[in-house]
Amino acid sequence: MTSDQSVLLMDLYELTMAHSYFELGMRETAVFELFVRKLPPSRRFLLAAGLEQVADYLEALQFAPNDIDFLSRLKLFSKEFLEHLSTVRFTGSVHAMPEGTPYFANEPILRVTAPILEAQLVESRVLNLVHFQSVIASKAVRCVLAARGRRLIDFGMRRAHGAEAALHAARGAYLAGFDATATVEAGRRFGIPLSGTMAHSFIEAHDHEEQAFRNFVSTRGRRTSLLLDTYDTERAARRVARLAHELKESKAAGQVQGVRIDSGDLGAQARAVRRILDEGQCQDIEIILSGGLDEQRIEALLEADTPVDAFGVGTRIDVSEDAPSLDMAYKVEEYAGRARRKRSPGKETWPGAKQVFRARNAAGTLTGDSIALAAEMQPGEPLLQEIMRDGRRLRRLPSLVEIRAFCLRRIAELPASMRALSTEENCYPVRVTERVRALAASLDTSGE
Amino acid sequence: MTSDQSVLLMDLYELTMAHSYFELGMRETAVFELFVRKLPPSRRFLLAAGLEQVADYLEALQFAPNDIDFLSRLKLFSKEFLEHLSTVRFTGSVHAMPEGTPYFANEPILRVTAPILEAQLVESRVLNLVHFQSVIASKAVRCVLAARGRRLIDFGMRRAHGAEAALHAARGAYLAGFDATATVEAGRRFGIPLSGTMAHSFIEAHDHEEQAFRNFVSTRGRRTSLLLDTYDTERAARRVARLAHELKESKAAGQVQGVRIDSGDLGAQARAVRRILDEGQCQDIEIILSGGLDEQRIEALLEADTPVDAFGVGTRIDVSEDAPSLDMAYKVEEYAGRARRKRSPGKETWPGAKQVFRARNAAGTLTGDSIALAAEMQPGEPLLQEIMRDGRRLRRLPSLVEIRAFCLRRIAELPASMRALSTEENCYPVRVTERVRALAASLDTSGE
Repeated sequence: MTSDQSVLLMDLYELTMAHSYFELGMRETAVFELFVRKLPPSRRFLLAAGLEQVADYLEALQFAPNDIDFLSRLKLFSKEFLEHLSTVRFTGSVHAMPEGTPYFANEPILRVTAPILEAQLVESRVLNLVHFQSVIASKAVRCVLAARGRRLIDFGMRRAHGAEAALHAARGAYLAGFDATATVEAGRRFGIPLSGTMAHSFIEAHDHEEQAFRNFVSTRGRRTSLLLDTYDTERAARRVARLAHELKESKAAGQVQGVRIDSGDLGAQARAVRRILDEGQCQDIEIILSGGLDEQRIEALLEADTPVDAFGVGTRIDVSEDAPSLDMAYKVEEYAGRARRKRSPGKETWPGAKQVFRARNAAGTLTGDSIALAAEMQPGEPLLQEIMRDGRRLRRLPSLVEIRAFCLRRIAELPASMRALSTEENCYPVRVTERVRALAASLDTSGE
Repeated sequence: MTSDQSVLLMDLYELTMAHSYFELGMRETAVFELFVRKLPPSRRFLLAAGLEQVADYLEALQFAPNDIDFLSRLKLFSKEFLEHLSTVRFTGSVHAMPEGTPYFANEPILRVTAPILEAQLVESRVLNLVHFQSVIASKAVRCVLAARGRRLIDFGMRRAHGAEAALHAARGAYLAGFDATATVEAGRRFGIPLSGTMAHSFIEAHDHEEQAFRNFVSTRGRRTSLLLDTYDTERAARRVARLAHELKESKAAGQVQGVRIDSGDLGAQARAVRRILDEGQCQDIEIILSGGLDEQRIEALLEADTPVDAFGVGTRIDVSEDAPSLDMAYKVEEYAGRARRKRSPGKETWPGAKQVFRARNAAGTLTGDSIALAAEMQPGEPLLQEIMRDGRRLRRLPSLVEIRAFCLRRIAELPASMRALSTEENCYPVRVTERVRALAASLDTSGE
């Protein structure tokens, strides 16, 4: 049994509550919605992501005999419940914002409608899947906006939080507009273009840097990038310029495509290296920068006119260093046809099955969202679409390449101020309709 | 193929470098070491963790035909290399600090000695595994120190970064002294005690809170905890006190064990609830607090004498909110019998295969560490032990329960000042021996 496929990847209380629902005969339909209570201070908007993984999970949901066996050994559950559990499948429907959609605080991005036992059981993993990719895509898109068209490559696997994090970070970053990943399995699983250069260890394993460069290019036998900062970056750049000439002259299969700088003052180094390469008639050799980059550093480098063709970004994106989590919740909004609301201080929910409507002006720029009841009509485009019914997806979900293109279009529709990195003022208007407010008020005055 | 078992969970450049090593006939032994360059400002020490997962990974390392097939379709590698790759196993040795050992900046915590192709290939995943559990254990131990013996339960799965992150966070937190996890699969896989209460949704799915409490206790049929803050915490506490009495009187199988408060001013609420319970003769009912907790909030609650028996901690621990990554690296220190050193600005390495010696005073308290060459002797205990040879573990690794006990002992040996949460002064002395310094200097003056 591997991590990402175990149905027991859930909080224990989902099972104890399911047990109680079963024993109590509570079999009515529940509506749960997934939303973020509050944006991190360093985000202007978030991006919906991870929906395909949710659909995969829900369609495959099933307790195998060895799962039931483990649960029975906990001595927490009745035999009848465990027998029932072995027959449980997800039979409900899912409405969701398409992956790549920008969203804001309190907007439901996913709605599950199913018998309460099923809707409850899936809580932990649905959150786990949507939360993480949303964290990553929402961070990565800021790099994309900062990079002004320079290529962005995900180098973050080593410090991502485990195997699935590495893969889903690559996916989340790509859908937000990254160009490639270094993580080979992410290339295989999601079809993301692969990219990579070389590590310092390759240089160090040679007695002479120049020999290492020569050896790498010749054995690669194609256009290849070389790493400059193992010992002395400018000296290395001069070596590369000489080598590149020689390889061009000899029309070798291996040629120098780019150079990477991974430490020191990246701006100053890039300028010095660009000058050396240009003076050596190597205007075609690209400069790739890496090492502790994030959207702020990328913006600062480009503000300073740093000569750079691509950025390798890793840790700070793959763990979303400045906002590694979102205050995302999955809450019951309706059960047995009656709207529900919790009033925990600071964690109050808007009751009822809801829809988000997004309005545009004549130029196509977004002007604001309305959080409405699913049953009401509001101006604008309804963002939540039914994607699963009776436990199966209604149609093919978009491919990752399609999601990426969709996301880029949706980002372009945002008011220009929302595309800036600064979050000093966050003015995108999101209103909660009168009918939602009235429903909440009516629940607050009824007894419970 | 699932995330955590794919051998292709590696950066592309590991493969392109391996390809070049193969084509160049570079088959000598390399020594790579894993260490953290600098501690995050909010950590006084780190904890070694994830070693068992590294051993599992290295022992299983193998490229299956479908892996080779995917790689051949990339058209980056020679046929001979791919044939060789299909025969590659990890045949090297591993020295490591036992899991649960506190460590400091620049100290190697794991050393891989193997033919360079193998040692290089495993870089990404070895880092990925050790980095994350080290992040978590190093954060979780701060909660353990802050909690002064109160029980700590990991509630963090939903916002952990994916499946493996949830499982390894549970493991990392448990080895650092946590008492239980809510993540069922972590209980199955690692034998961690499971714990859970109930969610607001269970209360909300009932028309009356009191009925929800009664139903949950009766269907659980054992000692059970109830959640107080869905509507009005104090009113809920009074309901619980009445219900607890009634259940005691009737000697029902289901009894109230504890109550959980998850929102609002936790200190004030806990005091109010404790008073209500005590006045209702329910002194035996425990109070569990949760909701955005971390070591600082736990310490503040206990400084204020908050009546609390257990803490449910989630997101802030499972993503290590204040330090979601460590500046951890895996660097070549020796190849073909010759020490190696990179001099990238700010990322210089200490060359050669190394050992860490830890000295104690007569009372058993740690007095300082020495980073030495593996071949030299220094006062104190050598921390790196050989755990794998010829690609196989030399002996059974400690069980998770043994690691947890070992870790608690090692924490107790730290100078008292190192066990405080404040990191204003970080005075633990770590010195680099003269022989290491001399080796570095000799490499810096040789040509490369």
